[in-house]
Amino acid sequence: MRTIIGVMGGAFVDEAVASSAYELGRLVAENGWVLLNGGRDAGVMRASARGAGDAGGLVVGILPSDDTKGVAPWVDVAIPTGMGDARNAINVLASHVVVALAGGPGTVSEIALALKSGRNVVLLGFPLGVPFDSFYESGQLVDAETPHEAIDCVARFLEHQGRA
Amino acid sequence: MRTIIGVMGGAFVDEAVASSAYELGRLVAENGWVLLNGGRDAGVMRASARGAGDAGGLVVGILPSDDTKGVAPWVDVAIPTGMGDARNAINVLASHVVVALAGGPGTVSEIALALKSGRNVVLLGFPLGVPFDSFYESGQLVDAETPHEAIDCVARFLEHQGRA
Amino acid sequence: MRTIIGVMGGAFVDEAVASSAYELGRLVAENGWVLLNGGRDAGVMRASARGAGDAGGLVVGILPSDDTKGVAPWVDVAIPTGMGDARNAINVLASHVVVALAGGPGTVSEIALALKSGRNVVLLGFPLGVPFDSFYESGQLVDAETPHEAIDCVARFLEHQGRA
Amino acid sequence: MRTIIGVMGGAFVDEAVASSAYELGRLVAENGWVLLNGGRDAGVMRASARGAGDAGGLVVGILPSDDTKGVAPWVDVAIPTGMGDARNAINVLASHVVVALAGGPGTVSEIALALKSGRNVVLLGFPLGVPFDSFYESGQLVDAETPHEAIDCVARFLEHQGRA
Repeated sequence: MRTIIGVMGGAFVDEAVASSAYELGRLVAENGWVLLNGGRDAGVMRASARGAGDAGGLVVGILPSDDTKGVAPWVDVAIPTGMGDARNAINVLASHVVVALAGGPGTVSEIALALKSGRNVVLLGFPLGVPFDSFYESGQLVDAETPHEAIDCVARFLEHQGRA
Repeated sequence: MRTIIGVMGGAFVDEAVASSAYELGRLVAENGWVLLNGGRDAGVMRASARGAGDAGGLVVGILPSDDTKGVAPWVDVAIPTGMGDARNAINVLASHVVVALAGGPGTVSEIALALKSGRNVVLLGFPLGVPFDSFYESGQLVDAETPHEAIDCVARFLEHQGRA
Repeated sequence: MRTIIGVMGGAFVDEAVASSAYELGRLVAENGWVLLNGGRDAGVMRASARGAGDAGGLVVGILPSDDTKGVAPWVDVAIPTGMGDARNAINVLASHVVVALAGGPGTVSEIALALKSGRNVVLLGFPLGVPFDSFYESGQLVDAETPHEAIDCVARFLEHQGRA
Repeated sequence: MRTIIGVMGGAFVDEAVASSAYELGRLVAENGWVLLNGGRDAGVMRASARGAGDAGGLVVGILPSDDTKGVAPWVDVAIPTGMGDARNAINVLASHVVVALAGGPGTVSEIALALKSGRNVVLLGFPLGVPFDSFYESGQLVDAETPHEAIDCVARFLEHQGRA
């Protein structure tokens, strides 16, 4: 069973965030991990899929729609769910570690669901205090400022999970 | 079709929050609205169901489990979904207005999913700035300090939706 | 907690099936049970909701869509799920007994999911042998030829469940 | 985007069915397709994953549970959904063609949901007449007697979809 890193983030993001997402995707692939995201050809989904794809990694996209229209072209395994935002719960359950970049309420819902489900979460350039203070304190949630720093956090979480 | 007010909040809350949830449930019922919540016999779910039930209102509980074990006794219509936290998406889609009291990441996920889906949200004694600032600015999200104030906000949202 | 009878069946049905669905809905309501169906304004959903509504019963509609467009006008509590056909699993989990009239693959999926989940099922004018033989043998699944006969079967199942 | 073949079938099957499932999984992998199934270490799921894994193919398992306990050891990408049987809808939406072997109501629900969603379905040693006659007539549903014959049917469906 391969290690899956979920990368979440907005569909509408600026160039700097997209660039971080691309770099993060590349690093996920170079570490031999599967990149999983929401699969759409937009924002953080598109950029992280492209980064992982360019590095030869495996990309899994969990789509809100019931078909694969609008999937990012670097997605290898497209999973249409037909469930809209309820698929956010699947995104995080399927990830050994979740990395979230800047985004809107969809991204926040994924962070919250990941924490509720006991998943480790790295926030990359998207620091959130309230309402998640207690998860920072317990160490389940950490902040990172660069893709490399995020990958270091992922590696530590995986080691702690006994997966590395 | 009856108007449905979703009441969200933590399963583990202090006495003051439970008391607010009870009062809110009572007021929802007295206004002739259906109260919808997560259905479990704990925290805000239990207290708000009790409040609505004591006032003779109709209570709908959308359960994470695949049976009705652990349902709050004031729930009239119990809907087991067998979907765990993915049912949070249903809770908010089914609500004409969502009122959220204090809670953990499950409650935050419901607030986020509600905003993503365009639902109006009232935060009762659970002010969240970041990451939801833009929704305060647009007026889709408002804070209230008491159950009565929350009900006033709900009524205004319903009026704006053309439902009252 | 009120007793919920799920009524399933096709969105495109002939007059005789619609007439059975109407009568069944009426009888469900007259017995004091909640009628639950897929909520849409078509076929068995529309007719059974109308029957229950005309008899003053409570009607719950579990919709595949993420809003309430296209809901049958006799639905009191509309629950949009945004989950497409995955909501079929909820329809049957939420029903103490499922009654299925003639329908297409959606209806067959609901019968199958109901049996898988241990729910009692009455097939009204929609006899299916293979692939459900073993469920007829165990008594979990029965055939009925008229709405009244279906209601008798429902009542026996509920009594056996200790709900009547 | 890679081509995904969904293989469905019972968790409790006899040796002959398991042997067919193994052979089918092997052939799916040898054709360069991704094998997708319900992921559990039982029956057709286990045998088909093993067959594909032994042939070096990629195996995706869509699990009903919210963690990966009980996953078949040949699954490369495990997707826990936490949605119980509602994940059956995802299994078929994610498959370009569905092949179903003998199974119980869970398998029947997948066949029905696949047909409802317009997916092509091959029944391998699991002929079902009623209630799916019309889908045989339209050619959306076909029977096969051996794994090789099933693979030929899959290839024809893919060609018709413009995927081969």
